[in-house]
Amino acid sequence: MAFSEAEQRAMARALELARRGPRSRNPQVGAVILSPSGDVIAEGWHRGAGTAHAEVDALSHLEGDAARGATAVVTLEPCNHTGRTGPCAAALIAAGVARVVYALDDPGDVEGGGGERLRAAGVSVESGLLAPEAAGLLASWLTARALGRPHVTVKWAQSLDGRAAAADGTSQWITGSEARADVHARRAQADAIVVGTGTLLADDPALTARDGDALFAAQPVPVVIGSAPIPAHAAVLRHPRPPLHHPTRDLTAVLDDLHDRGLHRVFVEGGPTLASAFIAAGLADRLLVYVAPTLLGGDRLALSDVGVGTISEQRRLTVESIERLGDDLLVVVAPDHAPEGGS
Amino acid sequence: MAFSEAEQRAMARALELARRGPRSRNPQVGAVILSPSGDVIAEGWHRGAGTAHAEVDALSHLEGDAARGATAVVTLEPCNHTGRTGPCAAALIAAGVARVVYALDDPGDVEGGGGERLRAAGVSVESGLLAPEAAGLLASWLTARALGRPHVTVKWAQSLDGRAAAADGTSQWITGSEARADVHARRAQADAIVVGTGTLLADDPALTARDGDALFAAQPVPVVIGSAPIPAHAAVLRHPRPPLHHPTRDLTAVLDDLHDRGLHRVFVEGGPTLASAFIAAGLADRLLVYVAPTLLGGDRLALSDVGVGTISEQRRLTVESIERLGDDLLVVVAPDHAPEGGS
Repeated sequence: MAFSEAEQRAMARALELARRGPRSRNPQVGAVILSPSGDVIAEGWHRGAGTAHAEVDALSHLEGDAARGATAVVTLEPCNHTGRTGPCAAALIAAGVARVVYALDDPGDVEGGGGERLRAAGVSVESGLLAPEAAGLLASWLTARALGRPHVTVKWAQSLDGRAAAADGTSQWITGSEARADVHARRAQADAIVVGTGTLLADDPALTARDGDALFAAQPVPVVIGSAPIPAHAAVLRHPRPPLHHPTRDLTAVLDDLHDRGLHRVFVEGGPTLASAFIAAGLADRLLVYVAPTLLGGDRLALSDVGVGTISEQRRLTVESIERLGDDLLVVVAPDHAPEGGS
Repeated sequence: MAFSEAEQRAMARALELARRGPRSRNPQVGAVILSPSGDVIAEGWHRGAGTAHAEVDALSHLEGDAARGATAVVTLEPCNHTGRTGPCAAALIAAGVARVVYALDDPGDVEGGGGERLRAAGVSVESGLLAPEAAGLLASWLTARALGRPHVTVKWAQSLDGRAAAADGTSQWITGSEARADVHARRAQADAIVVGTGTLLADDPALTARDGDALFAAQPVPVVIGSAPIPAHAAVLRHPRPPLHHPTRDLTAVLDDLHDRGLHRVFVEGGPTLASAFIAAGLADRLLVYVAPTLLGGDRLALSDVGVGTISEQRRLTVESIERLGDDLLVVVAPDHAPEGGS
């Protein structure tokens, strides 16, 4: 791989342009067209589903055969499928582009292969320029793309014996301050934070990500699942981001909507019924189990029914890490059914 | 502390003699009487509750004032109480013993102080000779003495969400072979292994400590608690040691009987009802929780009711260790109410 200085500058610029696009089901992509002498002759970026891809957007600014012999610098491998906008590889070939430089291979089964198609048409193709930067920008999109839906982390706190509360429902505080701070820091890294209406009505959570008393700069969108209405005075209505309410039990439909909105990293906070439903549906990719060194007994369980009737149906887990947080343990596990990936 | 060679040899001999005594609520103790010139003139050991203590046993072999000016070498501080056998300190003083060498201080509130009483009577007293060896011999007795009952370890295996079995009762195997081998090795270190009749009827456990297919040399006494009779064909009836059956729910009475029998290290294997009862009664000193990386959901809980109605009554635990055993975790915890000690 050899890239000219002009190509390197153009890729950095294309990454800037990519960030102008919205986060959505589609990736954020930027493109810069260089003349054979290395001058920038057009720029483009993707503005979301149903609009032109970045390369086509950039080409659209050029008249006649201005792109003939040019180099297209793109942050993601040009697509090779005919979706709502036609394949970018074909558009680049038709425009007479002589060389394409891109940062990241597209891992998709359908759209991948644009690079190969370009090469087959005699276009010089090089990839990998500023790939780590492009991967950083698209990390959560790549994960969601591999899953075909947002990446879902389900979090709960429990006693060692698997209870979320004492027999009378009291639970504050099972876990200590370090565990609670860890939860807030992880909330801040999520795009959406999901609770059921049962928890909303019982606990009236703010669903903000807090650093001590202050709010983290990044705040996940609060998402409420369930048919009960959100009470007019619910704390979640004062969240910096307006909550989404899905009055449904169809978790796949909820995730589909979040995916469309570019909410790729979903943090499910409970309660037990919702957490169990995500696990039972095979829609939990990672579980964060904060285990307090205490026993509660009784019937206030942290998980209810996860769809296991007999031992052969058990939901085996792979332990990713075990960490001491103050007196508590954080056990991070991945259900064995879930594909690889993390964000 | 200065001990003569004769005293050192005598203490090693006293430890041998101590081992001849039975394990019981009373400690295993040995004694050797040396003439002023360092010759062994008498030996003794304790043969169990209601019989002479080791020093008195040794003195009983001497006629007249043969012990005058002698040195008594004893593995435990001579007692200072008037029990069924009278205080040993007084007996040694009355016999005219000039010097007493013992290995271990007696930690008891009642019997302690024999050394002081001897000194007050002008006897030369030294302690600490072969103390580690004596402590090793008496380790579990010392623990039980501090507790006033046997040391109780409660063990269970559970899924991460606190279940012992799937909804239909199937459970083999939640934990892997390394965890099961660890259980057997720990059984072999116990004096008694306790199950409820529910588990006996449901699982027909052998209650042996096995090293692969072989039996460990040391086998705990199987103890069955509960009113149901032991079935005539129960595997436990083929255990190398005959089982004890306590048709009662009075756990304190059971532990008292085990204490009298010198079964100082008790390993409670379940099921959930019995394990929970020991915890609820404050009679569990250490918990071994084998956590399998799996989720089961449902209502087959590893613990049932541990006497916690509200969060302020939670049974807080101190984490002693967390260990990976194959895919499983072993979490060793001590209930915060329990006194220090272990065997």
